[in-house]
Amino acid sequence: MTMNLIGASICDEELIVQGEARDIQLPNTEHVSQISVDVGGSLAKVVYFSRIPGTKGGRLNFRKFETEKIDECIAFISRLLEESRAARPGHEFVIKATGGGAHLYYERLRDTLKVNIQREDEMECLITGLNFLITEIPFEVFTYSETDPMCFEETPEDPFPYMLVNIGSGVSILKVTSATTFERISGTSVGGGTLWGLLSLLTGAKTFDEMLEASQEGDNRNVDMLVGDIYGSDYSKVGLKSTTIASSMGKVFKKNVDKRQFKPEDISRSLLYMVSNNIGQIAYLNAQAHGLSKIYFGGCFIRGHPITMNTLSYAINFWSKGTIKALFLRHEGYLGAVGAFMKHRSSRRNSRSFTLSEQLAQKLADPEMADLEVTLAQDTLDVVADEESD
Amino acid sequence: MTMNLIGASICDEELIVQGEARDIQLPNTEHVSQISVDVGGSLAKVVYFSRIPGTKGGRLNFRKFETEKIDECIAFISRLLEESRAARPGHEFVIKATGGGAHLYYERLRDTLKVNIQREDEMECLITGLNFLITEIPFEVFTYSETDPMCFEETPEDPFPYMLVNIGSGVSILKVTSATTFERISGTSVGGGTLWGLLSLLTGAKTFDEMLEASQEGDNRNVDMLVGDIYGSDYSKVGLKSTTIASSMGKVFKKNVDKRQFKPEDISRSLLYMVSNNIGQIAYLNAQAHGLSKIYFGGCFIRGHPITMNTLSYAINFWSKGTIKALFLRHEGYLGAVGAFMKHRSSRRNSRSFTLSEQLAQKLADPEMADLEVTLAQDTLDVVADEESD
Repeated sequence: MTMNLIGASICDEELIVQGEARDIQLPNTEHVSQISVDVGGSLAKVVYFSRIPGTKGGRLNFRKFETEKIDECIAFISRLLEESRAARPGHEFVIKATGGGAHLYYERLRDTLKVNIQREDEMECLITGLNFLITEIPFEVFTYSETDPMCFEETPEDPFPYMLVNIGSGVSILKVTSATTFERISGTSVGGGTLWGLLSLLTGAKTFDEMLEASQEGDNRNVDMLVGDIYGSDYSKVGLKSTTIASSMGKVFKKNVDKRQFKPEDISRSLLYMVSNNIGQIAYLNAQAHGLSKIYFGGCFIRGHPITMNTLSYAINFWSKGTIKALFLRHEGYLGAVGAFMKHRSSRRNSRSFTLSEQLAQKLADPEMADLEVTLAQDTLDVVADEESD
Repeated sequence: MTMNLIGASICDEELIVQGEARDIQLPNTEHVSQISVDVGGSLAKVVYFSRIPGTKGGRLNFRKFETEKIDECIAFISRLLEESRAARPGHEFVIKATGGGAHLYYERLRDTLKVNIQREDEMECLITGLNFLITEIPFEVFTYSETDPMCFEETPEDPFPYMLVNIGSGVSILKVTSATTFERISGTSVGGGTLWGLLSLLTGAKTFDEMLEASQEGDNRNVDMLVGDIYGSDYSKVGLKSTTIASSMGKVFKKNVDKRQFKPEDISRSLLYMVSNNIGQIAYLNAQAHGLSKIYFGGCFIRGHPITMNTLSYAINFWSKGTIKALFLRHEGYLGAVGAFMKHRSSRRNSRSFTLSEQLAQKLADPEMADLEVTLAQDTLDVVADEESD
């Protein structure tokens, strides 16, 4: 069965400018089935499966929208549904929805999409999604360091226990002791929304990616107060180096200074450090309290940004003296949406309904692979699906 | 011996406007002896003793200056020294100096004041000062709650172990197990300097007290993203109320919103909550890790501000489920300066050289006392001194 091209024309200029998504050109030999959505405080994440008829292969597709523009997200899902209905007339489609927005926007989703919206618990979806990615998708989990920015982990035989730090607008910290046992042990309100909010007021940046780009050019020492600024040297008696940040933004509060002298890029870097360091420290303290030695960082705050991952890794390594490992994911922003996706009946029936396609696994495993970045594109994932969707 | 009036004319209009100090009119029957200074990243704190000749009584005086204007602080000390030299010609005076600025400004202090500057370790001074205030000064330590804003603690028989969270520009966290045994176990760069820096960029406030005042008028819900903003309700399954702050400043990052709609007072309250909550959480996690059930909060960040103390108390109580106690001090900003002061030879010789004068103790103990605020003025403390100063 072929698709028409309506669903394929989702090349949205604004989204591309924001770097939120790459152009997804659905080959018209695929058809869409199984859709899930995770609506958070700032971003709505959509995962859907597109199958290539006549093969067991297909593709998981990942898309982000701003929650502020929830109607764009709903319109996108509506187009996907149109495709699906055209391909399978008479079939009753179900959309799995999670995140706070699954409740806040429930009526709007149901009434606009005219489809069965099934709500799933947010924390449960995060863990279901993460467990799927950890155990089924090779080349998904990696550690980060400046010298080895993407060092992939082997798929663990027994991944439990671990901690998940999910960084969206705010931060949730979960302790996971088995595939079905978890607890939200902590969290902090100093998260992505804090950084985005402060930087949108303090710099001219219009998008989060602009802010991240600016931070790469910035020098936080122009706004942060370092130990050396207070002491003139190290404070070695208590192990504080002169380069340690004593007070984030601590150089700004001076009465007789023209505030315009503080550059947006320096402020961006300072606040990115501040938020990432702080999350790393609170994550470490919780991991220590619960005796956990593996911390997965998820959520749309990270988006593969080197300085962010480096700061989180550095903080965990510094505080734990190397005993706790910071782990990152290629699809970090989609844990909840993937988890909701896995709640579809057919996926639930067979926990291995979707696994990485051999073809992609081979490509990823090839050390000579020239174009890692493209293959690792976060917006799709070629998978094998054992059966048709619900 | 009488004093001239030069030292008494320190009524500095700008300082009064900032609320940094009250006018200290030295009665010309007193003379000044023993001076210490604690120069931090943002503020320099001075403690000095003024004796009433012919009595055992005297007064500890407390003054703050901005480190940025260190020369004003030095000029003030210089005037005090002039008094002292006039009163005791030929005596070799010593100034005890601590904090990072004791190193950074060492030459300037020495060369301008032409006096022996003895540097003392910052953390040691914090603990020495705190131990003195805890054990010798009644009506110094209190717990805070909205219903009982200043509930004084009994002087403890054995105050150890405890934790000190000292909040200046940055934050230091110390574990104290005896009068002489302590360790800096943690800290965070998200401190007073962060709040002052961010608010001086984001609001028109020129002083920290202006910021605190503004925060009292503000409503953080206009800029913070609450659980209810994401869910439309509680997220009761994991115990999050709809009023819980999910993301500090999380409502600000919206592209099509005029940034001027966000009011300075709302931002002030949000960021005050953010910094205080965060310090409370990190303090709790460290206290828990080290099995400590008493946390003293010191440093110039607090300055007796109700919302700050309430937020810190609330955070400790919330996270520890009531098992850990948050304690505050009337002279919270002067721990280091008091500690340095206690390092003067005569104070060291007798750990009880200075104790609260009986007269003041009686006044403080009187439940009928009409004018508590005045008696509790943080800028002086009437004490009995057993012997003459160094």
